[in-house]
Amino acid sequence: MDMKTFTGEITRQTKGNSHVVNITQDVQALIRQSGIREGQLTAMVIGSTAALTTLEFEPGLVNTDVAAMMERIAPEDGAYVHEATWGDDNGHSHLRAALMGPSLAMPVVDGHAPLGTWQQVVLVDFDTRPRQRRVVVNIIGE
Amino acid sequence: MDMKTFTGEITRQTKGNSHVVNITQDVQALIRQSGIREGQLTAMVIGSTAALTTLEFEPGLVNTDVAAMMERIAPEDGAYVHEATWGDDNGHSHLRAALMGPSLAMPVVDGHAPLGTWQQVVLVDFDTRPRQRRVVVNIIGE
Amino acid sequence: MDMKTFTGEITRQTKGNSHVVNITQDVQALIRQSGIREGQLTAMVIGSTAALTTLEFEPGLVNTDVAAMMERIAPEDGAYVHEATWGDDNGHSHLRAALMGPSLAMPVVDGHAPLGTWQQVVLVDFDTRPRQRRVVVNIIGE
Repeated sequence: MDMKTFTGEITRQTKGNSHVVNITQDVQALIRQSGIREGQLTAMVIGSTAALTTLEFEPGLVNTDVAAMMERIAPEDGAYVHEATWGDDNGHSHLRAALMGPSLAMPVVDGHAPLGTWQQVVLVDFDTRPRQRRVVVNIIGE
Repeated sequence: MDMKTFTGEITRQTKGNSHVVNITQDVQALIRQSGIREGQLTAMVIGSTAALTTLEFEPGLVNTDVAAMMERIAPEDGAYVHEATWGDDNGHSHLRAALMGPSLAMPVVDGHAPLGTWQQVVLVDFDTRPRQRRVVVNIIGE
Repeated sequence: MDMKTFTGEITRQTKGNSHVVNITQDVQALIRQSGIREGQLTAMVIGSTAALTTLEFEPGLVNTDVAAMMERIAPEDGAYVHEATWGDDNGHSHLRAALMGPSLAMPVVDGHAPLGTWQQVVLVDFDTRPRQRRVVVNIIGE
């Protein structure tokens, strides 16, 4: 088989404030679309106030527990020089996103990402307002 | 040289509760096995309660300090909706894993991952019980 | 077009103590140098007390807010077995670096990394002294 590379994009409307969005099906669909059976996938969210990771996509973690953990790490009403400088309200959003990280690398095996049953690919939007988010995905392999 | 892709797997028995396992030799062995001298490696742990990163693999960090940091971020006896919903005890495990991240991307240079002397590739199992863990690895390059 | 792989390195003098260094231009320059227009990039910092992520590179976040978040997660004057064992002072540096992560994977689109306007690639040095840091970069694609 020939080695090739494929670029795709996932676009999602988010609500901000630690909104967790399940993009697993979008990721798996892009792999199928690429025709690549074995190789690597890299996904990156554009912007500095959102992040990618994997999570069991169930309401407790998604709607409450992730946000509560992040509130301990970078509280929403904390004092941030970022906010004092720019008259902004999303200092905590930048910090949470930088810590969790904007991108995710995954192997591609037998034409899909080999996730666990309770492991979903999620986009977490830490900004303080609704955003239109773009996740750029590249797949390379054969 | 020809471009190729190689898939391998690392399997480890873990004890859970922030058990840190050194998988550096397994990673370097897979690179040797692939025959790839220059390119990229992606490793991902299957499941939503474990993570991959790099760490100096010495007893202080491995047996005490990592767990103590994680206890500040997502305490074991914290109140999690995940646990209330599912009668589970591992809400903190899911949160710690999602924050540290399930995967690791690394360059391959001269047939190995160019780690520092005190920098090891580690699997951290945050679940509350022993698990059989699978880390899927893809290497691509020439 | 032919598939190829390219390896480069970014070297930076850092001050330690959560020093945030903007390496975006270095990353984009390596992509141009590679001649690769579409594919994937992986960057990894060598050593266990520094990390890579993306961040809005503005003085508030860079000089104050990131360090303040990290102080909550792994305080500089905390008690670490790592320090007691080795007579060292950088237990917090190891923990912060392991949590944020040593590497970053990014898609390459139209010959550059598709970052947001306020999203920069940064090297964060958590060590307690100035260091000469090496970031190894591999780009693969066509």
